[in-house]
Amino acid sequence: MSAAPGDELVFLPLGGSNEIGMNFNLYGYGPAHARKWIVVDLGVTFGDQTTPGVEIILPDPAFIEEHAGDILGIVLTHAHEDHIGAVPWLWERLKAPLYATPFTAFLLREKLREADLLDGPFDLTLITLTHSIPEPNGLAIRTPLGTVLHTGDWKIDPDPLLGPVTDQEAIRRLGDEGVLAMVCDSTNVFVDGEAGSEGTVRTVLRELIGQLKGKIAAACFASNVARMDSIIRAAEANDRRVCLVGRSMLRMAAAARSVGLLTGVQPFVSDTEAGYFPADKVLYLCTGSQGEPRAALARIADGTHPHVALGANDACLFSSRVIPGNEVPIRNLQNKLADRGVRLFTERDHPGLHVSGHPCRDELKRMYQWARPEIAVPTHGERRHLLEHANLARDMQVPQALAPRNGDMVRLAPGRAEVIDEVPAGRLYVDGGMVTPEHGEALRERRHAAYNGVLTVALALDRKGRIVSGPQVRALGMPGEEGYDLEEALDDLAGEAEAALKKLSSNDRDDDHAVEQALSRALKRAAFRIWDRRPAVEATVLRV
Amino acid sequence: MSAAPGDELVFLPLGGSNEIGMNFNLYGYGPAHARKWIVVDLGVTFGDQTTPGVEIILPDPAFIEEHAGDILGIVLTHAHEDHIGAVPWLWERLKAPLYATPFTAFLLREKLREADLLDGPFDLTLITLTHSIPEPNGLAIRTPLGTVLHTGDWKIDPDPLLGPVTDQEAIRRLGDEGVLAMVCDSTNVFVDGEAGSEGTVRTVLRELIGQLKGKIAAACFASNVARMDSIIRAAEANDRRVCLVGRSMLRMAAAARSVGLLTGVQPFVSDTEAGYFPADKVLYLCTGSQGEPRAALARIADGTHPHVALGANDACLFSSRVIPGNEVPIRNLQNKLADRGVRLFTERDHPGLHVSGHPCRDELKRMYQWARPEIAVPTHGERRHLLEHANLARDMQVPQALAPRNGDMVRLAPGRAEVIDEVPAGRLYVDGGMVTPEHGEALRERRHAAYNGVLTVALALDRKGRIVSGPQVRALGMPGEEGYDLEEALDDLAGEAEAALKKLSSNDRDDDHAVEQALSRALKRAAFRIWDRRPAVEATVLRV
Repeated sequence: MSAAPGDELVFLPLGGSNEIGMNFNLYGYGPAHARKWIVVDLGVTFGDQTTPGVEIILPDPAFIEEHAGDILGIVLTHAHEDHIGAVPWLWERLKAPLYATPFTAFLLREKLREADLLDGPFDLTLITLTHSIPEPNGLAIRTPLGTVLHTGDWKIDPDPLLGPVTDQEAIRRLGDEGVLAMVCDSTNVFVDGEAGSEGTVRTVLRELIGQLKGKIAAACFASNVARMDSIIRAAEANDRRVCLVGRSMLRMAAAARSVGLLTGVQPFVSDTEAGYFPADKVLYLCTGSQGEPRAALARIADGTHPHVALGANDACLFSSRVIPGNEVPIRNLQNKLADRGVRLFTERDHPGLHVSGHPCRDELKRMYQWARPEIAVPTHGERRHLLEHANLARDMQVPQALAPRNGDMVRLAPGRAEVIDEVPAGRLYVDGGMVTPEHGEALRERRHAAYNGVLTVALALDRKGRIVSGPQVRALGMPGEEGYDLEEALDDLAGEAEAALKKLSSNDRDDDHAVEQALSRALKRAAFRIWDRRPAVEATVLRV
Repeated sequence: MSAAPGDELVFLPLGGSNEIGMNFNLYGYGPAHARKWIVVDLGVTFGDQTTPGVEIILPDPAFIEEHAGDILGIVLTHAHEDHIGAVPWLWERLKAPLYATPFTAFLLREKLREADLLDGPFDLTLITLTHSIPEPNGLAIRTPLGTVLHTGDWKIDPDPLLGPVTDQEAIRRLGDEGVLAMVCDSTNVFVDGEAGSEGTVRTVLRELIGQLKGKIAAACFASNVARMDSIIRAAEANDRRVCLVGRSMLRMAAAARSVGLLTGVQPFVSDTEAGYFPADKVLYLCTGSQGEPRAALARIADGTHPHVALGANDACLFSSRVIPGNEVPIRNLQNKLADRGVRLFTERDHPGLHVSGHPCRDELKRMYQWARPEIAVPTHGERRHLLEHANLARDMQVPQALAPRNGDMVRLAPGRAEVIDEVPAGRLYVDGGMVTPEHGEALRERRHAAYNGVLTVALALDRKGRIVSGPQVRALGMPGEEGYDLEEALDDLAGEAEAALKKLSSNDRDDDHAVEQALSRALKRAAFRIWDRRPAVEATVLRV
């Protein structure tokens, strides 16, 4: 392959470059009017209390959907939801071949295709990295205009326990060959030093479990199979059998075994069996480290789990980090466990009980020394992370560093790297099972109702606009208090509605829309007087 | 005073003993049927996204309201909202005299009364402590059955900058005299060492500000007058004038000056003036360290502040902690500032830029060594904190330690300390300006609507239950998507409503309530089929 005149190599993040999560990266090659594309990762992020009812948030694929015929393939670097979770929702719109390694593929239930089958200007080679899930891959993307190293999520773990260590030789050789651009993980750019090794965690776990006498529950991310393995081996070393609690633990264990992991350990015991074991002979490996309300640990803390109960002398180990935004649910969960007398161990009070899967500053520096790119393109981070990462790259003598936002199309070659276009890069919300726009009406209405409540008013008018029945006013979410009865308020509001109707001209009274608007306005005004807020008003006029 | 037979001394927390915040403590003295009470603190906590529309949360005073005639006084230890914020909402129900020191009283706009005017079995002495606000007071509560040391919020700051140091001599003397029980702050019981001194913060601030060239915004809690003072002096030492931005900064500055604080500094410049200063001659002291959306810093970050703009080469200092639950808004705020090129400095990356106002483990140990109580009663904390604090007290050789929940009435004397009663101790929500119960209908309905949406259906029936007009179905917060039009869904739903009506007996059709229930059930079922969720349904039958 060689570059034709007019060819450009561009990088375009549509997700992951304003947030940690929702990774969706495009690489384009060719002249502006005829580019071929590869997609690297297609992940989700999750809704929270600011998006009530929305559980999943997807990157908006509108831009690349228009060019779906020019997508050569979708490459999934590893199986975390923020890298693969949008495939079931968006693949139909892109319909390009999916490329993933076996563990990832098993979790996607998609047939594996080999990455080297890709046709077109992109030549892909996987580079083995270490992370907090099996089979984390970096990508060497060779093109006629140069090679891009797309790291995906990584760290440098000298003792990852499962799978090989980071293939630094491959990265060095790529550096010798010449790396045009490195698109790199920014998650821990504010953390000095190194993330630490899974091997250390295993040692810490074995020692800690050895000191505990009662029942033990341990929580970790189910996808962190090395961690599961460590907890299981630490339990076995202390003569405890392991019981998996929570559906995603069972699902991940199956995925791990499908690729030959989690072998050579004793069979798991079921939660019904485990109840008959002596307290110091069992360890429950649980989902729910983030305080998720329906997960195993939440039910144990609430005392509602059908088979697992913890109390005084028992212990709970959180071998996991706190995902930002989950602080309050985790705190509530821990208070409930403490209240049962359960001793709690977290990475905060027991260093080494968890390590991050993302590179800290010293690891980033080593990666830059190995790869020696011409251009640094930080991704996988919030604005703060990306900007700081670009600074770090400049300190490491990288000639060019830029921190594009989602939707910024960066020309990597030829010429100086720069943003040459901005394309739409919003989010889509999965709401009631439907894929809806980020700023759609439905969520806006629900949020408004959550803070302000709802009033409904219905009345029947004859053809001349005279009231035949009603108005009836109902309230949803409007407070009353001692001395101010809600029924009384609704009577007041019905009076206001009637008065508003009377003020209308007979023409307007013939117009359902005009009547509904007048009622709505009158009720909003009256509600503001009573409650100092403006509820949503749904007015219905029936003609008889 | 001497104890009569049957006299008991009890402690009853109605707030602050399940959470950090909302402090509301009762001390009772006398026989069970005729106790006299003092109230120590009457604070609030704040609503969050789990309580949409609820801004303020109050402790439920129901128990003590019944005994309002037996309240000798309400003593406010210091002016933080979690200690005084419920006074405007609940004082009417208790109507007891308020006791506070001048700074606290100024902020309450209540007349100061001297604590030693209290009549009855309680003899109160204030003990000067250090905290993160002027005039933090501990209380020595002497009774015929013994003395209680109620610490309020405190730390041991050898160099508090404003106000005297912790009066350890007074505490030691009280210990010599004999302390029956100590009711003590648990906030930082999981933190080793000491909280650190305001004096250190001042030094760190002066040096950091000296290194910065552009405009500086600094954020702190406005009530932390010592911190304001430090920032102001650090600015002046570096030849910068100070501009206060945000209403609570101006309010707190006025309160501070009313008691002789914040003196000997240059006059503040207004935000309009400050815009004309060279960048390196001004420092903006701002509200909004918690990411509050309408505070000064949020408006600066959004670029919507009328007079203050920050950009590249400028800096923002967060001289404050992250209050749990505010992580996400603070992160969003910081990303927006970083995106403008503003350099950020927080306590995380610049140790000493903030210190806590609550005692860490070493300080707690010293307090136990000074006071030597018979009974330790941890308060001001979540369950985890209280339980750990009780352990720490036992390690410090305190003979008895118990961790009551809100509503647990603890007999401190005579006899062994124990919980002798449980009284209701819920929360009240200020909702639409009305004081409402915690588990009231209105909030429940709004939360349900937030996640599930609302459907309304109205129809007009004649006296025989035949449809004269409608049904009309409207939706609020129900999503549609490409290929599934919402109007189409509403037509479907109207059909379902009609079908449901037809299935009713003629008796039921005469009954508005029965019709409304049938419509509601039919629409919920249909909605579940379409959206996999159950909206609230408001059905209205009009008879013509």
